[in-house]
Amino acid sequence: MSKRFEQKDWQESMRLKLDFNNMMTSYVGENGISEAEIADLQAQIEKAEKAMVEKRANGGMDWRDLPYNQADIVKDINAYVESVKDEFDTFVVLGIGGSALGPIAVQQAINHPYYNELSKEKRGGYPKLYVMDNIDPEKLVSLFDIIELDKTLFNVITKSGSTSETMSQFMIIKEMLEEKLGKEESKKHVVCTTDAKNGNLRPIADKEGYKSFIIPAGVGGRFSELTPVGLLPAAMCGIDIEELLAGAAYMDELCKNDNTFKNPASMYAILNYLAMKRGKNISVIMPYADTLKYIGDWYAQLWAESLGKKFDNDKNVVNVGQTPVRALGATDQHSQVQLYSEGPKDKVIVFVGVDKYKTTLDIPKIYGDIPSLGFLGGETHNKLIKTEQMATEYALLKSGQTNMTITLPEVNEFTLGQILYLFEVATGFAGELLDINAFDQPGVEEGKNATYAMFGRPGYDEKKAELDNRPAKNDKYII
Amino acid sequence: MSKRFEQKDWQESMRLKLDFNNMMTSYVGENGISEAEIADLQAQIEKAEKAMVEKRANGGMDWRDLPYNQADIVKDINAYVESVKDEFDTFVVLGIGGSALGPIAVQQAINHPYYNELSKEKRGGYPKLYVMDNIDPEKLVSLFDIIELDKTLFNVITKSGSTSETMSQFMIIKEMLEEKLGKEESKKHVVCTTDAKNGNLRPIADKEGYKSFIIPAGVGGRFSELTPVGLLPAAMCGIDIEELLAGAAYMDELCKNDNTFKNPASMYAILNYLAMKRGKNISVIMPYADTLKYIGDWYAQLWAESLGKKFDNDKNVVNVGQTPVRALGATDQHSQVQLYSEGPKDKVIVFVGVDKYKTTLDIPKIYGDIPSLGFLGGETHNKLIKTEQMATEYALLKSGQTNMTITLPEVNEFTLGQILYLFEVATGFAGELLDINAFDQPGVEEGKNATYAMFGRPGYDEKKAELDNRPAKNDKYII
Repeated sequence: MSKRFEQKDWQESMRLKLDFNNMMTSYVGENGISEAEIADLQAQIEKAEKAMVEKRANGGMDWRDLPYNQADIVKDINAYVESVKDEFDTFVVLGIGGSALGPIAVQQAINHPYYNELSKEKRGGYPKLYVMDNIDPEKLVSLFDIIELDKTLFNVITKSGSTSETMSQFMIIKEMLEEKLGKEESKKHVVCTTDAKNGNLRPIADKEGYKSFIIPAGVGGRFSELTPVGLLPAAMCGIDIEELLAGAAYMDELCKNDNTFKNPASMYAILNYLAMKRGKNISVIMPYADTLKYIGDWYAQLWAESLGKKFDNDKNVVNVGQTPVRALGATDQHSQVQLYSEGPKDKVIVFVGVDKYKTTLDIPKIYGDIPSLGFLGGETHNKLIKTEQMATEYALLKSGQTNMTITLPEVNEFTLGQILYLFEVATGFAGELLDINAFDQPGVEEGKNATYAMFGRPGYDEKKAELDNRPAKNDKYII
Repeated sequence: MSKRFEQKDWQESMRLKLDFNNMMTSYVGENGISEAEIADLQAQIEKAEKAMVEKRANGGMDWRDLPYNQADIVKDINAYVESVKDEFDTFVVLGIGGSALGPIAVQQAINHPYYNELSKEKRGGYPKLYVMDNIDPEKLVSLFDIIELDKTLFNVITKSGSTSETMSQFMIIKEMLEEKLGKEESKKHVVCTTDAKNGNLRPIADKEGYKSFIIPAGVGGRFSELTPVGLLPAAMCGIDIEELLAGAAYMDELCKNDNTFKNPASMYAILNYLAMKRGKNISVIMPYADTLKYIGDWYAQLWAESLGKKFDNDKNVVNVGQTPVRALGATDQHSQVQLYSEGPKDKVIVFVGVDKYKTTLDIPKIYGDIPSLGFLGGETHNKLIKTEQMATEYALLKSGQTNMTITLPEVNEFTLGQILYLFEVATGFAGELLDINAFDQPGVEEGKNATYAMFGRPGYDEKKAELDNRPAKNDKYII
C-alpha cells in the first residue's frame, strides 16, 4: 500500500489555505489593498515571475529542488538514525540562525510538547533533542547538569565552519569528549553537517573521522531547513522526513500557478509588497497553536534577513524591509492585541490556524449559574481557541488592521512541508518585487569584523584602529 | 548580619546602568535625538512629572507602592511555600497575559536554565514550575503525560475570575482533581490569586475552601508581577522575593530624581517618545543572556498594551503605540541584525547586557593554525558574547540605527527587581508624554464580545446579529 502522502485524496484533504479577504479594501476599508492596485502592478509581477523561473533554471535557487533530489540523502539519514538511536539518549545540535531555527520549529510542531520530559520509550526510542544556538556560558554549562556525555551525540551544523558561535561550542565539546571518553570513542559522538568541499569543518570532519552530511553549495542558511541541516535532527526525533519533503513538493506545484489569484506564494508576496509600499513596516505572524509557535521564529529570520536590505539590484540606497513580529494566539490576545486593534495601522497580521487539533479537551458543565463562566460549560477548548481566533480576526478587521489567515487542516509533516516551502517561495518573490537580492546578508559583516578586530584576529588591524579611534562615550549619557 | 540587599555597598555595586549614547545625534547622527529636542520638550516633561507624582499620591498607580507595603504578604507567601513544598513535585500556574509573563520571566532569569529537568534535590526541594497560558487543547492534555496529579498544586491567577482561558482551565482541572482525588483532598491542590472582594473567583475560592492570595484592586494585570501574582510562583521555586522587592524599591529611588538626565525611567520614556514622534514605531528588546529572554516577553506586553491606544486623554483619535519586538543576542544576530543594520531606520533597539555571568566557559586552545578559529582558542564564551554585543552596538551605530544599552552587573533578584520596576515607571511616564491612559485596555473588548456572541452567551444578541450580518467572504480571496 502506498504511503498516505502519495495518495491524491489525502494530499488534497491536507492542502493549506490562504485567506486574504481581510487584506482587501472591499473588506478592511481604506487601509487595505484593492484589485486595481494589483492590476497596476501587473508588469512588475510578470517580471518577478520571469525572474523566479530563470533563477530556478540557472541554479540561483537550488533550495527549490530540495523536495525532489534527496531520495538517497533521506535513505542515508534514516539509516544513520536507525544505527545510532539506541546508543544515544540525547542529540544536541550545535548551530545558530538557519541551522537552529528550522530544527526547533519542525521538532516543536510534530512532537509531543514535552518531548524531552518523556521516557525514551514514550519518545518511540528516539533521543532527546537540545538545540544550543547561543554562546551564553551559563546555558551550555548547565546542559551538562542534565545530560550524560557518554550517551550524547553532537551535531555540528555550519556550512562555512567559521561561525564563531558554533565552532567555539564544537571546540569545547571536542575537548570535553576526548578528555572523558578518549579520542577513539569520541569520534562516534560527533556528526557534522557542512559543505561538501569548502570551509573549515569539512577537513576537520575528514581528519577526525566524523560522520558527516552535506549542505548543498547553492543553498543558504535560512533556506536550508529541507537539507540535512533540518532533516537529520528531525529524523533523529522520529519525524517522517519523506512526508515533510512531499509536502514541500505539493506546495511547489501550487506555487507554479501563473494565475496570481491562484498562487499562494505570489499573492502573499504581492500583498505584503503593496502593504510595505504604503508604510506597513511590520509583519506579525500569530499561530493559534503552541505547536506552531516556533514556525514564527523561523519565519522571522527568513523574512527579515532576506528582505531587509540597504541596496536594490541597481545599487540604489533603498533601506527596505519589514520587521517580523512573533505572537502566539490565544495567549498574546492578552499582550499584543490591544496595540494591534488601537495602535497605528502599520502592520500585516498573519494568523496561522489549525482545523483539527490532535486531541479534544472538554470543559465540564459546571458553574452554570455564573454568566461569565456558564457559557463555557459543556464546550471544548478546541472550540474556544478557534472562536477566539475568528473573533480576533473580526476585531482587527473592524479596526482597519490588515490581516490574513493561513489554515492547516492538521499539523503534520505534510502540512508543515507546505508552509515552510510557501514562505520560502513567497520570500523569494517579494525580493523580486522589491528588486533586491533576497539571498545575501552583507549587513552582518560589520558586526563580525568588529568582533574579530576586538579579539585581535590577524588581518583586522585597520578595523581595530577604527574601533580604537571611535569617539569616547559621554558620561552624561549614562545613568 | 544584615541581608546583602540591605547593605548600601552591595546595592550600589548592583545598580543597573542605562547607556543612551547611541540614541543621541552626536553619536548616531541625523536619526538620533538632540539635547535641544529634549530641552524643547521641557514643559511637557514637567507636566508628565507632575502627573506621575499626583497619580501616585491619589491612588492612580498603586503598583508603585508594592515594594514597600507587602512585608506581611511576603511572610504569608513564604510560610505557605514552606508548608506545601515537600508535598508537591509540581506547581502549575493557570494564568494568561500579566498572570503568566511575569512568573515566566522571573523564574527563567533566576533559576537553572533546565530547572524542570533537575532532580527535586537539585531544585533545592522546590517543585517544578509549568505555566499554562494558552488554551491549545494539545498542550494541557500533554501536561498530564509528564506530571502526577496527586503531587501537583495548581495556582489559578485571575483578578476578575472571568478570564475565559484561565477559568475554563480551572474548570477542567477542578473536575479532574475531584474525580481522581475526591472533593476533600482536592482542596489542598488549588491556590487562588484573585481580587479581595470582587469577581467570580473570590466566592468560588471561599466556598470551596481554597487557600488564596490577593491581587490589590488598584493594580492592573501587566503591572502585577510584584504582587502575589508573581511573588507566589517565584517563592515556590526558591526565589528570594524580599530581594526582588528591595531591587524595585532601590529603582524607585532612582526614578524619583527630578534631573531628567539622572532619571533612567524618564529618560527611557523621553527618548522613545521622541523616536516615536519621528516615526520609529518599533521597540526592539534584545537581551544578551538566555536568562533574560523572557523579560522581553514581559516587556512586550507592558509596552504594547499600555501605549497602544486609539484615543488620547481628550478623546482625540491618535492611534499611537510602538510595537515591541523580542530578540535574543547573540542568537538573533544570525536572524534579525541584517534587517536592523540595512533596513529602515524605524527602530529603537534596547540591548540588555550582563557584566558578570554566573559561570565562566573556557574555549580550548586548539586549531591555532586555522585563522577563523585560532583567535578563539584560549578565550572564553563570556568574552565572546560580550564582544559580540559591543560589536553589534557599534555596527548599528554606524548604520544609523538608534540603540541603547541597559547593563545589569549580575542577574539576581535585586537587579531583576530594578529592571522590572524601571520599565514599569518608564511606561507610565511615556503614557503621560503621549497624553494617553497607559492603564486601560479598551481595545481587547471587541474580540471578547465577538467570542461571547459566537458562543451564544446571553446578553450578546446584538453582537451576534452584527456577526451574522457581516459580509460573506469572497472565495476569490481564498487560495
